[in-house]
Amino acid sequence: MKEIHLTECKYLTSSILLMAEHLENVANKLDKDAVRQMLEDITNARRIFVMGAGRSGLIGRAFAMRLMHLGLTSHVVGEATTPAVSKEDVVIAISGSGQTRSIANLGRVTKEIGARLVTITFNKESTLGEMSDTVIVLPGRTKNDVGGYDERHMRGEFTYLTPLGTSFETSSNVFLDAVVAELIFITGASEEDLKSRHTNIE
Amino acid sequence: MKEIHLTECKYLTSSILLMAEHLENVANKLDKDAVRQMLEDITNARRIFVMGAGRSGLIGRAFAMRLMHLGLTSHVVGEATTPAVSKEDVVIAISGSGQTRSIANLGRVTKEIGARLVTITFNKESTLGEMSDTVIVLPGRTKNDVGGYDERHMRGEFTYLTPLGTSFETSSNVFLDAVVAELIFITGASEEDLKSRHTNIE
Amino acid sequence: MKEIHLTECKYLTSSILLMAEHLENVANKLDKDAVRQMLEDITNARRIFVMGAGRSGLIGRAFAMRLMHLGLTSHVVGEATTPAVSKEDVVIAISGSGQTRSIANLGRVTKEIGARLVTITFNKESTLGEMSDTVIVLPGRTKNDVGGYDERHMRGEFTYLTPLGTSFETSSNVFLDAVVAELIFITGASEEDLKSRHTNIE
Amino acid sequence: MKEIHLTECKYLTSSILLMAEHLENVANKLDKDAVRQMLEDITNARRIFVMGAGRSGLIGRAFAMRLMHLGLTSHVVGEATTPAVSKEDVVIAISGSGQTRSIANLGRVTKEIGARLVTITFNKESTLGEMSDTVIVLPGRTKNDVGGYDERHMRGEFTYLTPLGTSFETSSNVFLDAVVAELIFITGASEEDLKSRHTNIE
Repeated sequence: MKEIHLTECKYLTSSILLMAEHLENVANKLDKDAVRQMLEDITNARRIFVMGAGRSGLIGRAFAMRLMHLGLTSHVVGEATTPAVSKEDVVIAISGSGQTRSIANLGRVTKEIGARLVTITFNKESTLGEMSDTVIVLPGRTKNDVGGYDERHMRGEFTYLTPLGTSFETSSNVFLDAVVAELIFITGASEEDLKSRHTNIE
Repeated sequence: MKEIHLTECKYLTSSILLMAEHLENVANKLDKDAVRQMLEDITNARRIFVMGAGRSGLIGRAFAMRLMHLGLTSHVVGEATTPAVSKEDVVIAISGSGQTRSIANLGRVTKEIGARLVTITFNKESTLGEMSDTVIVLPGRTKNDVGGYDERHMRGEFTYLTPLGTSFETSSNVFLDAVVAELIFITGASEEDLKSRHTNIE
Repeated sequence: MKEIHLTECKYLTSSILLMAEHLENVANKLDKDAVRQMLEDITNARRIFVMGAGRSGLIGRAFAMRLMHLGLTSHVVGEATTPAVSKEDVVIAISGSGQTRSIANLGRVTKEIGARLVTITFNKESTLGEMSDTVIVLPGRTKNDVGGYDERHMRGEFTYLTPLGTSFETSSNVFLDAVVAELIFITGASEEDLKSRHTNIE
Repeated sequence: MKEIHLTECKYLTSSILLMAEHLENVANKLDKDAVRQMLEDITNARRIFVMGAGRSGLIGRAFAMRLMHLGLTSHVVGEATTPAVSKEDVVIAISGSGQTRSIANLGRVTKEIGARLVTITFNKESTLGEMSDTVIVLPGRTKNDVGGYDERHMRGEFTYLTPLGTSFETSSNVFLDAVVAELIFITGASEEDLKSRHTNIE
């Protein structure tokens, strides 16, 4: 049996502190105009669709879940019961590189349908960054992840295992939680309200 | 069309800063012995099973994905192709309250099978906290979420919408990313190694 | 390398023929009153929720997908964006034994909320069979699958691998497809209508 | 409240009988050589990967689940913990048209990696049909579903709602169950064996 001697778990602790520092950086560098635009896109939409590949997809699902809890109608693109998108909807794409092939393709479809497209990315000069109505740029390292997500996955190309490799995922996750917090503030709902509104409305 | 006047997006920015501060707190309060034990549980296990309900389940899935990327054999409990657990395996439960009914029940099954059980929770004095071999306590507010997850979901009982309500999810997410970083450090793998190991081994 | 000598693939062909025969039996033994009741439950509901464990869950998801295609609002219980159930909704449970613990528990919650509960089962005298407003009985062999689905899965208890073991799943799948066909007939929609209605309405 | 007068549920019953007849046709028209080849592909593979879009994906997941129950190592392409494919593996694609863009692309990747590729389709003269090592042709009506699955889904293009539209899905589902039955026969396992083998091995 292997035994691990970690008198201090140095690397583990410093990874968490690094992420804390990274988040401060994210908070301070946010483009407030873009954020305001995104909040308007969400509050004016009939329904909110969220999409992302791999881990960004899991983050999107957690965000969509919380929008539903807020009383909004949200859907995850690709799920069994997700309806077709209409031009009154907003589609929110999460893509670090802004180049993930399947997501960029669905972004193009979104624009053809005439719905609003919001992208969360660290790469503004990307396929998704350039076609979107609203772009939220979160700092993160440059990843070379062009091509299809499932394709790279099937080939075993994983370049995002170090702590810096996940900084985009963590910051988009925390950013989207903060968007939910702001939406609660905007609508003036208390936690008690939210709870009761749910049990009454639904 | 609604227009939003947010000269500063105060609430949103402060939510992110609050989370950064919370993570510093997490890093400084970690029980190093428990963490070391968890790392041994993972490296000595034949396979790693991860489980959690709702959003904790999404975090578990992201963690299991990264363990697989590291070259380990990991499974998400409840997925179609997840095999039966054996006593050479470790099962990692993510449960803020430590009381989530379905997860606590599967924790009991894990102990009957004789596999190691690790729980990530903010509540050490809980059903899961007390039956587990290794408990990682992450600071978080007290939630009253006894009962089944799907049951509360179906009833529309959502009490975790404010930023503090997600502090456990964010800290467990960042903590588990740091565990992956530490595992890379332990095995001495460079990012290049990881990539090539994957394409060669698989 | 193993070589397989199957001059006729006897067992495989006879399995398919057995299922064809089983389906004829299903068609002839259907309780028409119960089916009519189920169709009314669906057409009168504000939204349709579908639930099932394991393979029955996959069948439920396929059914929910087709209801959405029909223009109805459907949800799979347990998905990220599935809203809370209200008393104007119908919940459809798929459970061979009618005893699957998690599903029976959610059936109880459904009745407390006051929504209609429909169960598809081969076992009318079961927990779900007895609490439901509408019960569709499909012939199938008796399975001893009391207890939680994930629990049995984790323990490695799989008793449903032979062709007869899946007769309930196949017949519920084909039955639910036929329900969709009947719903198209009731609403008088042609395939062309369905297609255009979708692209116009959504 | 709408009331439904269906003295006989004619359409529903005839849909089920139609499917029974269709399955007899499937059983009688199977290419035994191709089936034998597929069984060899499965029994000789190190691991079995299954893929499909939309409803074919759900059928694939149910098949992968049963292979795992049989004691084989199976994975669903696109799941969080699915490892990279190697040349000792077999990849099984389910695609009615044989043209589903994302699946055809992953078929190409499979061939580049050097793994065996099996396709279940009603269209032998298709992208997937032509690149596969083994093709199982199941009778079904011609569908015009070129292009990406999620793309058509997002646009609301649904052409497969009538009973005939699902004949491929039902027949591939029943065919794959019969493959599992044949695999049990080949390995000579009784149901009791399967059960005990599981609890011992895992």
